[in-house]
Amino acid sequence: MLTRIDHIGIACRDLAATIALYQSAFGLAVVSEEIHADQGVREAMLCVAEAPAGASYVQLLEPLAPDTPVGRFLDRRGEGIHHVGYGVTDIAAALSAIGASGVRLIDSRARHGSMGAAIAFLHPKDVGGVLTELVQAAAR
Amino acid sequence: MLTRIDHIGIACRDLAATIALYQSAFGLAVVSEEIHADQGVREAMLCVAEAPAGASYVQLLEPLAPDTPVGRFLDRRGEGIHHVGYGVTDIAAALSAIGASGVRLIDSRARHGSMGAAIAFLHPKDVGGVLTELVQAAAR
Repeated sequence: MLTRIDHIGIACRDLAATIALYQSAFGLAVVSEEIHADQGVREAMLCVAEAPAGASYVQLLEPLAPDTPVGRFLDRRGEGIHHVGYGVTDIAAALSAIGASGVRLIDSRARHGSMGAAIAFLHPKDVGGVLTELVQAAAR
Repeated sequence: MLTRIDHIGIACRDLAATIALYQSAFGLAVVSEEIHADQGVREAMLCVAEAPAGASYVQLLEPLAPDTPVGRFLDRRGEGIHHVGYGVTDIAAALSAIGASGVRLIDSRARHGSMGAAIAFLHPKDVGGVLTELVQAAAR
């Protein structure tokens, strides 16, 4: 069902400074920067690796305001890993199978995510405390 | 320098129950279970995907005692994502380059990790709050 680790989502206070850190320390380059007003975040996708099943990214997330999911995460826990996203080839089928296993779905239907992907989140309380995202990448 | 997201490390209180969850929800299978007494953990590696650059895993970590790094993490933050591991092809060269960029190294030389890999951790304070591991997988 899962085809890869699509990305790790990292909450930061200063997107530009954190992009500079990942470029300097690891040589990662930004392939996309987007603002998702509905999610309250400004984000950058940095490519770690390309593979036949799809690319893997570091996703850096800066909140647009304190009273947003990532803003509250930073208040509570500080900067760090916010979630993990796994690649799937058919997100509707994956949501159906995962929901049937007893995991509650935050998004029962896929919505628009970064770089044209279809995404959906699973409830962290049912995945061992891990905010887990499914990602069906846009056709290339 | 980075070849892939090698794994995400997830802290849990009950390894067997969390393995069962990942099998049931995502169909992931355990490829290795090890005890690392020096790190104070019992762990399982569940394969997410194989790729030419190497496989990607979910690594589940249960502390052997409360007074261990993962035990203290659970006390402080509860279950959830503990660290991320990136694949590299030459860990000594990667540590040298990353150290030269100003990131402090927890391990200035690689040590033994899961499944015969050579591993080293970077200081989370210098990587935006993210406990970051480098992994040079064992030759296959």
